[in-house]
Order: sequence, then C-alpha cells, then structure tokens
Amino acid sequence: MITSLITGGAGFIGSHVAKHCISLGHRVVVLDDLSGGFIDHVPTDAIFINGSISDEVLLKELFEKYNFDYVYHLAAYAAEGLSHFIRKFNYNNNLIGSVNLINLSVLYEVKCFVFTSSIAVYGAGQVPMSEEMIPQPEDPYGIAKYAVELDLKAARHLFGLNYIIFRPHNVYGENQNIGDKYRNVIGIFMNQIMQNKPLTIFGDGEQTRAFSYIDDIAPIIAHSVNFPKAYNEIFNIGADKPYTINELVDVIAAEFGITPKVIHLPARKEVVHAHSDHSKARKIFGTNIHVPLDEGIHKMATWARKVGARQSQKFNNLEIEKNLPEGWSN
Amino acid sequence: MITSLITGGAGFIGSHVAKHCISLGHRVVVLDDLSGGFIDHVPTDAIFINGSISDEVLLKELFEKYNFDYVYHLAAYAAEGLSHFIRKFNYNNNLIGSVNLINLSVLYEVKCFVFTSSIAVYGAGQVPMSEEMIPQPEDPYGIAKYAVELDLKAARHLFGLNYIIFRPHNVYGENQNIGDKYRNVIGIFMNQIMQNKPLTIFGDGEQTRAFSYIDDIAPIIAHSVNFPKAYNEIFNIGADKPYTINELVDVIAAEFGITPKVIHLPARKEVVHAHSDHSKARKIFGTNIHVPLDEGIHKMATWARKVGARQSQKFNNLEIEKNLPEGWSN
Repeated sequence: MITSLITGGAGFIGSHVAKHCISLGHRVVVLDDLSGGFIDHVPTDAIFINGSISDEVLLKELFEKYNFDYVYHLAAYAAEGLSHFIRKFNYNNNLIGSVNLINLSVLYEVKCFVFTSSIAVYGAGQVPMSEEMIPQPEDPYGIAKYAVELDLKAARHLFGLNYIIFRPHNVYGENQNIGDKYRNVIGIFMNQIMQNKPLTIFGDGEQTRAFSYIDDIAPIIAHSVNFPKAYNEIFNIGADKPYTINELVDVIAAEFGITPKVIHLPARKEVVHAHSDHSKARKIFGTNIHVPLDEGIHKMATWARKVGARQSQKFNNLEIEKNLPEGWSN
Repeated sequence: MITSLITGGAGFIGSHVAKHCISLGHRVVVLDDLSGGFIDHVPTDAIFINGSISDEVLLKELFEKYNFDYVYHLAAYAAEGLSHFIRKFNYNNNLIGSVNLINLSVLYEVKCFVFTSSIAVYGAGQVPMSEEMIPQPEDPYGIAKYAVELDLKAARHLFGLNYIIFRPHNVYGENQNIGDKYRNVIGIFMNQIMQNKPLTIFGDGEQTRAFSYIDDIAPIIAHSVNFPKAYNEIFNIGADKPYTINELVDVIAAEFGITPKVIHLPARKEVVHAHSDHSKARKIFGTNIHVPLDEGIHKMATWARKVGARQSQKFNNLEIEKNLPEGWSN
C-alpha cells in the first residue's frame, strides 16, 4: 500500500490534495499544527497528526513508523506581503521546516518529494512567468520558497532524492482561510462582504492576477507522482486568464448581489502584473480544465456563506513594524 | 566616533577586517563564538564579545549599547562541500543568524551592512563569474549565502537598509584555520606537510581555483563603507589567475623544500573551474594589487611554521552520512 505524508493537510490546498490522494488509494497521514488550517478540513479517512514540521523528533517518529512512499509538502506560512515584517519567522517555518523534511526524505528513501512552491520565486518583471526563467525572488517568502527549490535540486544531485516542484498562483476555493487578513484577496473580499464592511484594495486595483480555482490545482499535485516525466521538474500551475482586482470586485459583488463599497489603501510594494505560462504542465499532465472565475467564485461563495464570516486573526509577533501597510498594524 | 560590529572577527577574514577597521579609526566590537576562530586573532584594540549571531537577546543588547554605524557580517560556517551533509545546521547558522542581524540593522538604522557572501552563489558553468550573471547556487552553503543576498536587497527595497555584498573566493593567509579538514586546500596541505602526511587531492587535481591572498581582500572590505558608489552593489573580489591544484602542490612543496607525496581521493561533486571577473571592484575601489601566489604562500607558511600544525577538528553532528566523501566520515 502506498503511504503518503501530506504536510499542511488541514490547510487550504493541502486538504484538497489529501482528499485526492485518498481517492488514488493512498494511505494518507496529514501533519498540521493548525496554525492556519482547520481540523474539520482533514479528510475523515486520513490519519491526522497535530504537529509541526519544525518538530524534528516528531517527524523522525513519523518517518520511522509509516515509511512514506511520497511526501507532499504543503505546510507553510503563506503571507507573502507580510513576510518582510516577519522574516525570521518566515525562514524558520518555510525553509528550516522544509529542510527537516528533505533530510528525512533522503534518510528514509522517499520515492518522490512533491513541493508546492510559488510564483513568488519569479520576482517582478518576468511576465508571463515561465519555468525556463531564472528566478529572482524579491521578498522573504519568495526567497524561502526558492531556497527550498534549490535545496531539493542539490539533494537530488547528491543523494538521488526525486522531487516535483509546483508553482501555483492565486488559488481560491472551498476550505480557504477567509479569516486571514494578510492574504488571498478573494477570501478577504468575501469576508468583508459577509460582515457588511467595505472592500479594501491596495492601490488603484489595476494590478492583475490569474485566479485559479482549487480543482484546477489540487488533483494535478496529487496525481503527479504517477507521471515519471514530471520527476525532477518544475511546473507552473493555475489559470491562464489575468483579471484586474477591480474586475474581481465586480464578479464577487454580482455573486453576492451587492453594490460594492470600495476603499483604496496606499499601494503596497508588490508585483503589478503576475501571470504565468502553463504549457509545460499541460504537456506532461495533459489537462486543460480551467473553471471560469464566476463559476469558481460561485462554488466558493456557496461554501463561505455556509461556514459564515470569521474574525481576522492578527499576527502578534511582528519583527519589524516600520513601513507596515495600513490595516496590518496591531 | 564610528562604531563597527564585526561578526566572525576572531575568524580568518574577520580578524583581518577588524584590524583594518581599527586602522581606519573605528571603534570595533568583535562578536565571535570561537567555533571556528581563535581569541588570539582578535586585535587587542577591539572589544571582544564571546557569543553567537544566533543569540537574539545578546545581539539586541549589543545593538542597543553600541549603536553601530556599520555591521561587517563575516560570521559563517564556511565548509561548502560539507554543507550537503549538515544542511539544517548550515541554514540555521548562515541564513537565520544573518537574518537576526538584518532585522536589528533595520531597527537600529545601521548606515551600511557589509556582507561577505561567496562565489558559491554562482553555481557551476558560469566562468568567469561576473556580477551580472543571475546566481544559481548548487549546494546548501551557496544557497544560504544567496538567500542572504536576496534578503538584503528586499530589506533595502522596503526599509532603506544600505548594503555592500562581497563575493570573495579561495582566500588564504595568516590566521586561517589550518586545522579544518573540510575546507581551504592551502591550509590543509600545509597542515599535512607539517605533520609529514601525504597531501590529499580529490580527483585528478586538474580543477582550477584563483587563490587570493588575504591582503588583497580584507582592506577592500574594511574600506568599502567609505565608497558611496559601492552602496547597494555586489562585488567579486580576489585574484585573477587560476591555478590547478597540482600546480598549487608544486608551489607549496617548493616553499617547504619537500618532494610532495600525493594521494588522490575520489573526486567530489564540486565546481571544476572557478574563477571570477573583478573589473567592477577595480572600477569602484581603484585597486589592482595582487600578491603573487608564491609570495603569499611564503608569508602564510612563515606564520604556519610559527604556530605549528593543529589537529583536525571533526564535525560531530552530521545530518546525513550517505555519499560522504572519503576522509570526512567520523
């Protein structure tokens, strides 16, 4: 029987990947410290371990006990914009935690290490982002993700550990933490609408993103280990079509049947146009389904209305508060 | 009065930089945990603090007390080849430790953060290495150094922290830890000769390196803060002329007046040809002194004969032992 470890399996993308791995017949062990995820998102057929990728002793016990065939590493603190202000926390969680898993995957001879990186590795000015470009990340979140990618290549070269790296972007859908005020604009907007608050936009709203519905992402990640041609390769995955934030507001407002009130906050230092080329993923995985934005928004909104608005969690351990964007300070 | 923090100031390059900063009239605080350095290398006019860049509480006390104008960050665990086998230790020391210093340099408004990176950031196949190339590091040591470089750029962008990054290579000279068997082939050879042991070479010895005498490196690093054009720039520094390891053996053997016995160990996975372009540093710092190899070897050997051979220290906390090069296992 194939056994897979899914880190971050109570989180948004992780919980969907866990579900798809179970459909593939894997025995699934979910490791999650519930810092961003929710226990009710863990599929009932998964073995759930409440713990962190920073806990080396626990990790070693799990590798020893379950002898994992595959590691799907999705645990991360994923607030890109906030990462400037929590750089040490970011590197400890997203790099050192990953390195714990890489070391153990070498030692226990895992067959393939599937890592969800991010388009944050590319940096600005590389549009449309293609896997052939040499990344030049510009914020601590992207730097940590890129360091893990490079470390996986080094581990492959020296120890033969296989990897598959995915760089998804702007994923949205059911199970997303819509209470997180630091990221995921779609979740933030839905949360604001359900609380009758105005929608907050950084800058003029003309920045573009290609929003990707979760069902276009999670199945590919789960199935990837069965594609030998995907081994030791990197793939962009997600939707092709970019939308402005202003266009997004219209789609979400239509779904909720409201006339949106919008507040423009000062622009953040962020990439203005981010969309990426997916021809490599299409070639290997042969899939080209893209749920249209209004349809994905409808599915997510149906779920969000059911679970209701959540209170925003504040991040309480800011390392630097200088130049913190408005609305993020404590 | 100008006050400078020199991390790793009891180490090889750091102790020389400390000496030159004192010549410049700086009040110098040396922070070193003596894991690789020696207290007698710290200039007598420096304030010595025995501690680690991992100790956030101590660092905060130092920044609070001394209100540093400049930070020269040279502390690192610098065994590139070994870094595959101690990846977590490597990232904790070389990245997280650096991030502690970057956070505090932002908070306490340091005027310039001088960071010694490494040509290890370039990766293989980029010869001669030039600052315009986009780095693609291939081992955890180079990955950590590159992550710090990128993090400094991000901190500059968001918080206005100035930096100067140096990528020295193959530095040798007085105060080098010749007891370290994991790095610095010149020190290793001298140590072996003084113990009447054969010289060990990985592979055929035809790999090339441009060995750089310490006096061609340390003064530039110390003086750099006085060159406004150097701010927020990256510089290769070191010698231009590459030598094969076999040629190096001849020069060292001649200095010690011996006929060398050589043992060839299996080749390591390492960059075969590494040398770099220094025109950018020449343009800004206006210097072009290069101590010839035989002259530098003579100076270092004179010192090494005086201090005598040292016993190799073993690294006791290997995380992975698989594929460890011969002679490195415990």
